[in-house]
Amino acid sequence: MQNVKGTYDYFGREQARRRQIQNILRNKFELYDFDEMVTTELTELDFLTSKYAGGDEIVKEMYQLTDQRKRRLGLRYDLTIPFAKVIALNPGIELPFKRYEMGKVFRDGPVKRGRLREFLQCDVDMVGVRGPEAEVELMQLAVDVFGALDIAVVLKWNNRRFLAEVLEAVSVQAEDTSSVMLTLDKLAKIGVIGVKEELLEKGFSDNATRGVMGLLELEDVSLEAIVLKYGLQGSEGALEVLAVRNILRELGLEKTCVFDLFLSRGLSFYTGTVYEIFDATGGYASSLGGGGRYDAIIGKLVGKDDTESEYSAVGLSFGIESIMALLEERAYEAVPAPVVLIPVGVSAVELLQTAAELRAAGLRVRLDTSGRKLKNILASLANSGIRYAVLVGETEWKAGMVRLKDMEEWVERDMSMDELLYRIADKYVG
Amino acid sequence: MQNVKGTYDYFGREQARRRQIQNILRNKFELYDFDEMVTTELTELDFLTSKYAGGDEIVKEMYQLTDQRKRRLGLRYDLTIPFAKVIALNPGIELPFKRYEMGKVFRDGPVKRGRLREFLQCDVDMVGVRGPEAEVELMQLAVDVFGALDIAVVLKWNNRRFLAEVLEAVSVQAEDTSSVMLTLDKLAKIGVIGVKEELLEKGFSDNATRGVMGLLELEDVSLEAIVLKYGLQGSEGALEVLAVRNILRELGLEKTCVFDLFLSRGLSFYTGTVYEIFDATGGYASSLGGGGRYDAIIGKLVGKDDTESEYSAVGLSFGIESIMALLEERAYEAVPAPVVLIPVGVSAVELLQTAAELRAAGLRVRLDTSGRKLKNILASLANSGIRYAVLVGETEWKAGMVRLKDMEEWVERDMSMDELLYRIADKYVG
Repeated sequence: MQNVKGTYDYFGREQARRRQIQNILRNKFELYDFDEMVTTELTELDFLTSKYAGGDEIVKEMYQLTDQRKRRLGLRYDLTIPFAKVIALNPGIELPFKRYEMGKVFRDGPVKRGRLREFLQCDVDMVGVRGPEAEVELMQLAVDVFGALDIAVVLKWNNRRFLAEVLEAVSVQAEDTSSVMLTLDKLAKIGVIGVKEELLEKGFSDNATRGVMGLLELEDVSLEAIVLKYGLQGSEGALEVLAVRNILRELGLEKTCVFDLFLSRGLSFYTGTVYEIFDATGGYASSLGGGGRYDAIIGKLVGKDDTESEYSAVGLSFGIESIMALLEERAYEAVPAPVVLIPVGVSAVELLQTAAELRAAGLRVRLDTSGRKLKNILASLANSGIRYAVLVGETEWKAGMVRLKDMEEWVERDMSMDELLYRIADKYVG
Repeated sequence: MQNVKGTYDYFGREQARRRQIQNILRNKFELYDFDEMVTTELTELDFLTSKYAGGDEIVKEMYQLTDQRKRRLGLRYDLTIPFAKVIALNPGIELPFKRYEMGKVFRDGPVKRGRLREFLQCDVDMVGVRGPEAEVELMQLAVDVFGALDIAVVLKWNNRRFLAEVLEAVSVQAEDTSSVMLTLDKLAKIGVIGVKEELLEKGFSDNATRGVMGLLELEDVSLEAIVLKYGLQGSEGALEVLAVRNILRELGLEKTCVFDLFLSRGLSFYTGTVYEIFDATGGYASSLGGGGRYDAIIGKLVGKDDTESEYSAVGLSFGIESIMALLEERAYEAVPAPVVLIPVGVSAVELLQTAAELRAAGLRVRLDTSGRKLKNILASLANSGIRYAVLVGETEWKAGMVRLKDMEEWVERDMSMDELLYRIADKYVG
């Protein structure tokens, strides 16, 4: 017996920590007025493989199955396609519409660090919004979330429309733009030389390759310098990127949200701003999340590609498994340990009744009915960091008392239930 | 485009309500010292179809798939088998071990009210516990959970060992016991006549059929009367059932947790106490949950059936989809509506900055950047039950003020951010 490769079970302290992280994200999403969505994991195969869906690379990794009636189904491989499905199936949804979803997705691909076959994905999207305040609101959210997680991040951002204008200015043909962006996106990974090699391999014109190399060798890649150098004042992409930059600057976010001319996120469905989030210390190399504006794809998926503007959208995907991995080594702020009730010559009745009273007051309670020697029980509790043991003894019980053993302060005393609650309940609030 | 039959997407107020219910359950489980477990949905086919697993009926409804390497997999159809898997794969787990899991399971079966193909299941189990206090603790939990949900329930319970003793006393052959129990379990559904017909169909001896019919016609089916009538004083099953009954009586739970001689829950893997939970008003016919003691099956699933006692277990499964359906018609205690920020002649900067301040104070904030007329915005907010709109105007902003419109009390006034927070923050605590 073994687990399916690339799938994991979580329990105990590890799952408690995973849940804690999810709750932090969830709370922030709701402050930003995103409502939760839970979509189906089983999906019609035709929709998952439609030409506007995940693309060949992802579809190849999709788990396929057929039901007893031979219908062809697939397991969802992301949360965007199901989101588009819900928009399409519910034409009454009022736009703008803001939702988050945190749920399992499945990919039958190579397993390595940070790439699993069954994993949690976490997406925040709004559809029906055009202005730059939408993308900046998501950047604010990202900064806020990572602040709450106490992870120092840098959010790199760019605008694909602007990058296309720049590439055009350095002689890249319009039909090559996407392919050049794909290569540029690897800059951090393969370096300037790698980029040059890949451009040559791809067989672009000398002019274009030289143009791109010129870009990479620029000393000043600040926004203003680029706009000025390539005469892009007033161009559509430049205006978009300047609008976002100015808002970020005014909000004091410019140090965390850094413009990066070479970021493109590879994915061709992004139509404007794109961003990607990294560990600011550089200790964790993989992306911690990313997203951008995608104004066309939902309209196309829902079969209304003539109304792009209606379904213009901005999204942010948190790399929640990466976040969990990054936080794995952090000290874990424990959930309250249970109060452990130990019977000393009483029956189950007295024990369960005491438990009910403590639980009604909001205390987490464990019964120890192992029948082991008291000394041994207490020793193992102390070992596992449990502070409070409550001995329920026959004589004390008849007098309305229990005995509290506080294993942190090494005191032990008989007291009434009221006093017990008064002494320990505050440890369980909050 | 359509959803796969028997699968649903949830969002908006409906999902908020589903989440609220899940949180109520989760909080109670943790008070009872159950930790969360999240198991894999993809599982090796061999394990899901092993002879101690779900049984033919369920296995027939399992979704099967193969990965790219032709490994044979299945989607989990319950949470018990994955639980046993985790126990088997983690021999270091300290017993007793208490866990809950709330997650999707999949069954490719007939779809009808309350039976979906992809649905939430919610199980609470403890393994490594033998005494009757374990089952009573779970009954306490059930009563506590339904109390918190404000659903009046009756929990019917019985003991399969005791029922077997009674059936033996009325001449049912040992090898027929399970089959007779299966029929008896349908009593509420098919009535005494239906039970008799099914017993005759199944071809049991006249003696046995007459014996069972005699049972069904008894005037006094109280525990004491049965024990006395069939001379079961001191028998193993009778002792178990009396122990549980006495604890329930002392705890004042006897009115909610009602002994029912004919309950058997069909499933043969239960070895002792069984229970099932129903809407006390009778308005909702389906079971709202159930469970019982199963001392052998985890040991067998983990391949150690010689150590039954080590893996003795008690479980409780909440019919969470039924609970959701039952609560559907209840008035929904809304989550706090957002505070809506409306720009009046200011740019995105002032709006996003105001939003950041309010969110930092824990308020849920929505931006309205629709550009519609103020009058129309306010009308639609009032329609959707939103109380607070905050107008961010250029002149006010420069003076450090915003304008609050309280649409419940129909007042409108300029104030500082501090005053705004003071006036409305308490609506968001909690």
